[in-house]
Amino acid sequence: MVDLDKISTLPPEGADKQDYKQHLSDLRDELFQLQNKLYADGRYSVLIVLQGLDTSGKDGTIRHSFSGMNPQGVQVTSFKKPSEDEMKHDFLWRVYPHFPAKGMIRVFNRSYYEDILVPTVHQSLSDEVLLHRASLINELEHHLSASNTLILKYYLHISPEEQKERIEERKSKPHKRWKYAKEDEKIPLQWDDYKQAYHTVLNKCNHIPWHIIPSDKRWYRNHTAAKILLDELKKLDLRYPDVEE
Amino acid sequence: MVDLDKISTLPPEGADKQDYKQHLSDLRDELFQLQNKLYADGRYSVLIVLQGLDTSGKDGTIRHSFSGMNPQGVQVTSFKKPSEDEMKHDFLWRVYPHFPAKGMIRVFNRSYYEDILVPTVHQSLSDEVLLHRASLINELEHHLSASNTLILKYYLHISPEEQKERIEERKSKPHKRWKYAKEDEKIPLQWDDYKQAYHTVLNKCNHIPWHIIPSDKRWYRNHTAAKILLDELKKLDLRYPDVEE
Repeated sequence: MVDLDKISTLPPEGADKQDYKQHLSDLRDELFQLQNKLYADGRYSVLIVLQGLDTSGKDGTIRHSFSGMNPQGVQVTSFKKPSEDEMKHDFLWRVYPHFPAKGMIRVFNRSYYEDILVPTVHQSLSDEVLLHRASLINELEHHLSASNTLILKYYLHISPEEQKERIEERKSKPHKRWKYAKEDEKIPLQWDDYKQAYHTVLNKCNHIPWHIIPSDKRWYRNHTAAKILLDELKKLDLRYPDVEE
Repeated sequence: MVDLDKISTLPPEGADKQDYKQHLSDLRDELFQLQNKLYADGRYSVLIVLQGLDTSGKDGTIRHSFSGMNPQGVQVTSFKKPSEDEMKHDFLWRVYPHFPAKGMIRVFNRSYYEDILVPTVHQSLSDEVLLHRASLINELEHHLSASNTLILKYYLHISPEEQKERIEERKSKPHKRWKYAKEDEKIPLQWDDYKQAYHTVLNKCNHIPWHIIPSDKRWYRNHTAAKILLDELKKLDLRYPDVEE
């Protein structure tokens, strides 16, 4: 049973920022090599599902942990509010075309999990429908795994204090101001509702386990996100195939 | 009038491999920053059209010159032999959905230019149709430019000797063998035909000029490809927009 209140949003004591930043640069070099092997090997796909409250750093994680690989082999899909057209279909319709092909890494910046989170917070769907969605997602992830897709689910875990600070930063730092919108002021008010909704998702949709990443410190978050991907890729025992005869 | 026979495939005399490699790493850091600004600015799109004979290094250029930027803002489309479905449409039908959105960089690994090159070599279309395609492409590129798309057209220029060597490398180097296919042996036989076809394309479709990149040395090619992109991005006078009121 995952209880976010019992999981720290901070790096382990003694973790040194400069060490982690230096090491992330090494991790990126390793990822550059291993992604090439994944592509050449051609047997596996990788799906990274990035979730987290507003300002938890999904964009930053993609920018810092997953840059450096060949852009030909790494694709990102951002799922925003569904369009009118998308709303006329079941919630997986817009997602399906974006699952990664063999040899490819696909990052979902938000995902089908929003289709449980948002209606839970807005109370726009019955519990029965929400539970059905959760069970569908479990089946879907199982099905993808069985077809050689490595699924890595990241939850970026921040504290309410850090969230408030980041919204302030968007207003005060010139190179972050473009990210700010008036609605951002309302984000902290929804803290408890979203945390509750995440509890449902983290506990009901856990056949493929979640990686809960302490994300109050960007340097620790970026390092952890890259490290998990690297460790999991290593387990795949990737190899360059022999020449075709 | 472009004449490929008169353009060197080698770096300028005195160019030092280690210097260029080091400098490429600096260029990538600058690109990392500037791509973020392009995305935040939101007024321009960038389309990089990568063309060149087989083994000229299109994949390698993407991997070495355009990695390092945020994968959320850089997308690659590889155009392979058209599928049966795609053949049932005009040649631009499969291309159109892949043009870059505002704020985004899109790399075309091969492009609509193949739809002139291949039928020219195989003599499968009349000159009239081919000329019509060339004029359509000129109009399309003009139209995209007028809609704030920066179009960068790269021709990776290699010598026939270098091509032969690279095909040999695919057979002899273990980490390159997966790229080798029996058909590769036929590539050098088509050298003259493709060079002729490229002459047509480089001279008829030049309203947006081509960058002809000497590509016998990978380090010079990678550096040049990144440098052109950086220089052109700088000319856009990108800026972080002010906060919305």
